[in-house]
Amino acid sequence: MAVGLTGLPLLHPVPGIRLGTAQAHIRKPDRRDLVVIACAPGTRAAAVFTKNRFCAAPVVVAREHLGQSAPRALLINTGFANAGTGEPGLVDARASCTALARVLKCQPHEILPFSTGVIGERLSVDRLTAGLPACLAALNESGWGEAAQGIMTTDTVPKGASRRLTLDGKTVTVTGIAKGAGMIRPDMATLLAFVATDAVVSAGALQACLNAAVNMSFNRITVDGDTSTNDACLLLATGKAGNSEIRDANGDSYAALARAVAEICTELAQAIVRDAEGITKFITLEVRGASESDCLAVAYTIAHSPLVKTAFFASDPNWGRILAAVGRAPIAHLDVGKVSIHLEDVCVVRNGGVAADYTETAGREVMRRPEIRVRVDLGAGSASATVWTSDLSHDYVRINAEYRT
Amino acid sequence: MAVGLTGLPLLHPVPGIRLGTAQAHIRKPDRRDLVVIACAPGTRAAAVFTKNRFCAAPVVVAREHLGQSAPRALLINTGFANAGTGEPGLVDARASCTALARVLKCQPHEILPFSTGVIGERLSVDRLTAGLPACLAALNESGWGEAAQGIMTTDTVPKGASRRLTLDGKTVTVTGIAKGAGMIRPDMATLLAFVATDAVVSAGALQACLNAAVNMSFNRITVDGDTSTNDACLLLATGKAGNSEIRDANGDSYAALARAVAEICTELAQAIVRDAEGITKFITLEVRGASESDCLAVAYTIAHSPLVKTAFFASDPNWGRILAAVGRAPIAHLDVGKVSIHLEDVCVVRNGGVAADYTETAGREVMRRPEIRVRVDLGAGSASATVWTSDLSHDYVRINAEYRT
Repeated sequence: MAVGLTGLPLLHPVPGIRLGTAQAHIRKPDRRDLVVIACAPGTRAAAVFTKNRFCAAPVVVAREHLGQSAPRALLINTGFANAGTGEPGLVDARASCTALARVLKCQPHEILPFSTGVIGERLSVDRLTAGLPACLAALNESGWGEAAQGIMTTDTVPKGASRRLTLDGKTVTVTGIAKGAGMIRPDMATLLAFVATDAVVSAGALQACLNAAVNMSFNRITVDGDTSTNDACLLLATGKAGNSEIRDANGDSYAALARAVAEICTELAQAIVRDAEGITKFITLEVRGASESDCLAVAYTIAHSPLVKTAFFASDPNWGRILAAVGRAPIAHLDVGKVSIHLEDVCVVRNGGVAADYTETAGREVMRRPEIRVRVDLGAGSASATVWTSDLSHDYVRINAEYRT
Repeated sequence: MAVGLTGLPLLHPVPGIRLGTAQAHIRKPDRRDLVVIACAPGTRAAAVFTKNRFCAAPVVVAREHLGQSAPRALLINTGFANAGTGEPGLVDARASCTALARVLKCQPHEILPFSTGVIGERLSVDRLTAGLPACLAALNESGWGEAAQGIMTTDTVPKGASRRLTLDGKTVTVTGIAKGAGMIRPDMATLLAFVATDAVVSAGALQACLNAAVNMSFNRITVDGDTSTNDACLLLATGKAGNSEIRDANGDSYAALARAVAEICTELAQAIVRDAEGITKFITLEVRGASESDCLAVAYTIAHSPLVKTAFFASDPNWGRILAAVGRAPIAHLDVGKVSIHLEDVCVVRNGGVAADYTETAGREVMRRPEIRVRVDLGAGSASATVWTSDLSHDYVRINAEYRT
């Protein structure tokens, strides 16, 4: 059961972007598993991809195609990730692009392919191709909600976010969708997030905008520490809004757009954690009092500790496990006598030991909540970092033990 | 249920070492929870401790006492770890040593304290002191088996190992016991391992012997990646065997003793993994074809992946998860086209993609076994490293969710 997600919010259409979703029976029957996102001519794209060395065939091909021209369409399938499939996987990814290019009457390198699902098994290009007419027939600017459903795998709810802002007196829209619930520790972007805007913005400013947003959103979440082979986040700009072009990463218009994109990405990234496999608790880890990289290292060490995660699942204020995780974090210096830990507003650890006024009752009351903020102060330096994560439950084990059955 | 452990092997007494175990009701009734290990005068000690910065009070005190004199006795309690307890915890650890020193008529700094159990709660020195007479009354050279039981927490079976060897025509014994099933990712030694020998060996050679053994045994296992606050491994040498003194880390006698100590430590370390919380599979990860540190980094990335661990639990040959873990390992260079992966003798991945002759049936047959060897070849460099680990099961979550109840 997702924590704090109550269905899709209103997703504003983005002029110049049309989405079509279909059931192509790619791995299982009776589920939407194929999505086409068509872009108006002149749409610019910025992208970030997984840093996993075993990146999937569609990641290789999408990166290659982005280097050649602006995209006319995105082609997304679930069921098979087309990762760990070697040369045949690349052939399949290219064949998929060719099939869509043929019906759209464009070049194969104007198609960007994305896949998600089981690693190591071949994608059926025939089934995918057979599903394309239904996708194209469904193409429309209001297709965001269906597309959000069409990219789901172990997700229990579709994820989307949308904002409207005004630039030069013109209304500009930013809308995005994402999927992912397991194998989540993005090291660049998380598995499949598609954000689009109609702003007029240069390719350079668009990429800057995406990099900044991803770094503070998708790159700040973890479910299980496992970086996927297929992570990709795309930001499209159709240029239909009519604002004067945002040329670089300066100025009020850039700042306003960057803020909206960052908000969308943060909402989507948090939605992924809120729907993490088996989640019962949504946990915000705020670490301060050291360099940003040290704060992050401490936050991730806590976030990845199976003992901390099972304690959250049990609603057990077993703060000793948080303390132990801080103590083993890979940072150069730590003055244990300066460390403090809060569960929400309850001070649990002060000066490296249990706080004199802490009571188990107070700790237990906080731990029962579905959303918990943990604040760790390392007592040196002024930077901070926030990471969002989930607990480790029976259902996480069940879902991942049964994944391929 | 432990994997491949069938009760304690024969534990040979070590002349000069006597052990006494009692029920002191330290946290729970009706369980052995207090152990005294008495050493003959002149016994030398080598030790390694956790590198967790939040090391427990007994670790601080034991390290301090080892710097002052040879130990006359070790004092070990379960129930409370006396970690995260600040200054009062240090007072408790010292008071425990003073209590035992009083009855043994020695100095407090001749006592080494060790604790294991819940972090963050105070140890009752009164209960511990009240249990000492029963421990001392029980002291005898054949007390190894009871002591192995007396140091258990979430362990389901006691763990011990023993060897006899001949040095200069003299019979020399090496016997050890250990405990630990969760919060296991030793970064120096694992929570409470005590090994003793009657060999005549210098303090320097003894420490060299322990360092080498620990590095290839306790420092090569992981259950959950969580380095404990209380890890400690002690090697005692009573000098009762009458061999000519081993003065340094050279020569045949040193090599023979070092081999026996390494074998004991490896058997104990593997026993800890075999009894890991919730274990159903004992997994040996052999990584080769890169520098030793890169091989280790890849092995630990696989070993800590919740997705890999749940696949083992499910007996699912989901090798894509192993591939994805290799791909995200923190090493500088990886030529994915050279990577191969074997499950036992079944080649699953060759040249970075699924092996042409691999069948799911063959993979599934291997994954059903209780003990599985995974071999990863990175195809560059000649070093290798082996890490032992367990799977991630429903019981791991249950045990750690219920730990304090």
